[in-house]
Amino acid sequence: MTDTAAIGNYKPHEREDLTAAFDPLHLDKISELARVDAGERDLVRAVAYKGHLPFDGEMMDLLPNLGVIANYGVGYDAIDVDAATERGIRVTNTPDVLNDDVADLAVAMWLMQRREMEQASRWAREGNWKEKGEYRLNTKASGGTAGILGLGRIGREIADRLSAFKMEIHYHSRSEKDTPGWTYHADPVSLAGAVDSLFIALVGGAETENYVSKEVIEALGPEGVLVNISRGTTVDEGALLDALESGALGGAGLDVFRGEPDIDPRFYKIPSVVIQPHQGSGSVATRGAMAQLQRDNISAFLTGNALLTPVN
Amino acid sequence: MTDTAAIGNYKPHEREDLTAAFDPLHLDKISELARVDAGERDLVRAVAYKGHLPFDGEMMDLLPNLGVIANYGVGYDAIDVDAATERGIRVTNTPDVLNDDVADLAVAMWLMQRREMEQASRWAREGNWKEKGEYRLNTKASGGTAGILGLGRIGREIADRLSAFKMEIHYHSRSEKDTPGWTYHADPVSLAGAVDSLFIALVGGAETENYVSKEVIEALGPEGVLVNISRGTTVDEGALLDALESGALGGAGLDVFRGEPDIDPRFYKIPSVVIQPHQGSGSVATRGAMAQLQRDNISAFLTGNALLTPVN
Repeated sequence: MTDTAAIGNYKPHEREDLTAAFDPLHLDKISELARVDAGERDLVRAVAYKGHLPFDGEMMDLLPNLGVIANYGVGYDAIDVDAATERGIRVTNTPDVLNDDVADLAVAMWLMQRREMEQASRWAREGNWKEKGEYRLNTKASGGTAGILGLGRIGREIADRLSAFKMEIHYHSRSEKDTPGWTYHADPVSLAGAVDSLFIALVGGAETENYVSKEVIEALGPEGVLVNISRGTTVDEGALLDALESGALGGAGLDVFRGEPDIDPRFYKIPSVVIQPHQGSGSVATRGAMAQLQRDNISAFLTGNALLTPVN
Repeated sequence: MTDTAAIGNYKPHEREDLTAAFDPLHLDKISELARVDAGERDLVRAVAYKGHLPFDGEMMDLLPNLGVIANYGVGYDAIDVDAATERGIRVTNTPDVLNDDVADLAVAMWLMQRREMEQASRWAREGNWKEKGEYRLNTKASGGTAGILGLGRIGREIADRLSAFKMEIHYHSRSEKDTPGWTYHADPVSLAGAVDSLFIALVGGAETENYVSKEVIEALGPEGVLVNISRGTTVDEGALLDALESGALGGAGLDVFRGEPDIDPRFYKIPSVVIQPHQGSGSVATRGAMAQLQRDNISAFLTGNALLTPVN
């Protein structure tokens, strides 16, 4: 019997750390909550949550004494925060500690796409370099124009890195921000039309659903590359696939997808797409810091101290 | 009959541009020079050279009126510059125009190696993401310590980019240089011991042969990654392979190899190595700028003007 539940597909060492800290009830999926004995559920005051399955009001009502949902990750779009707030449940996330990793992966996917590095690697590994000569020429990365869609903490980390690649930085955000001379665009289509590389760093959730529309994708154009490290939901994925297949969009670097990990198989057949399995924050050091921050938020709640990184 | 020879494996459009400019004698390999009629050879005053096959004094003597060898590329270690100088032959190269591309590729190989991006891509593409879950955690790139071995123009471009990834920069060069606070090491073993990521940006040729010795590689160590965008000759490749296979070195990102393109097949079996087919400068824009600079040097010579980028 415990006052904490760990819900989600934790890696073994993360599970061990949670056990050492809270000896929680472990559930792989939130849907298993309904099968837990009511007496056990009544005891739960804190949930350590991981994953992208919806944690809605109905699920919260299964835990009548729940006081905090500590999310593992900066994006908490799986959690219905309004429903939590109505019930007096606090929600926390793990911001900042993952900014570097996610920005690193964004820049890496961009470079890989522009310089066709996976194809070039295969060219060497399959013997073509030796048999047929040099790999074909590709697209210069440095020195172009980059757009950041969503200039939050991760967007800024991406922009800072791109500046060192001599990229001229443009951005679109809900409002104009204090920047080192970056160019603001009031709408995303204008941004996409002004740049050759577009980085999506929006928050997820209903308000940004399909924010990267067919019009944005077409404005980016046949020489352009779209990099998404935010959420699959932010992009009109059908329009993206159509544009990539027709050549209306030059290429993409994608760490996030609709319905991941069961992603649309059309992506696998498009050579101009760099695919990553949502591993933006996936370094040992960063995941360790995220897990620690999640546990620290739970400990703070259970001991009556201020939450470290609340979102409501 | 022409006063110019284009020697090397030029791409079709490069060959066309050379023909338009000089209508040169075209040879795929320098070894074909001996088969050219002496009367034709006597006319040649300028060579547009591309490739890594040795252009030595003996070959120069087949062109008694040769005045300039314009190399395609910044590295001219294939050309015996001392032998050229003795014969009054000027040598030019194509510096600077390729710095961005080469530095981009160096940073990209480093990110790909640390974040295991080729493996993660395969994990998604082969269905493991869907069937088995997340790809394994890997190594954080940003925020570590990087060493630059050879702080020339390309080395500085790499260091500038890495600074934006919050890397602490160390370097070794023939002499201490004016830098923004980067740490100088008087010898390469000391440099390798101080950093977790080592970028080789040396010039090629006899003076740097095996400069990255077994001791340097071992000092970098099992958590370290070696990135080479210079020349295969700068590294003791046997020691590198041994260290990668045994785990004495953590990983590598290699655009250059001994005997390329016929590289040691041991490299293909080591998962911690990112392989690129010597495509550092291989963007359309950069190769175009290199070819233009090569032609401009030849034009300058033939019209009696000052060479743009002479090396002797």
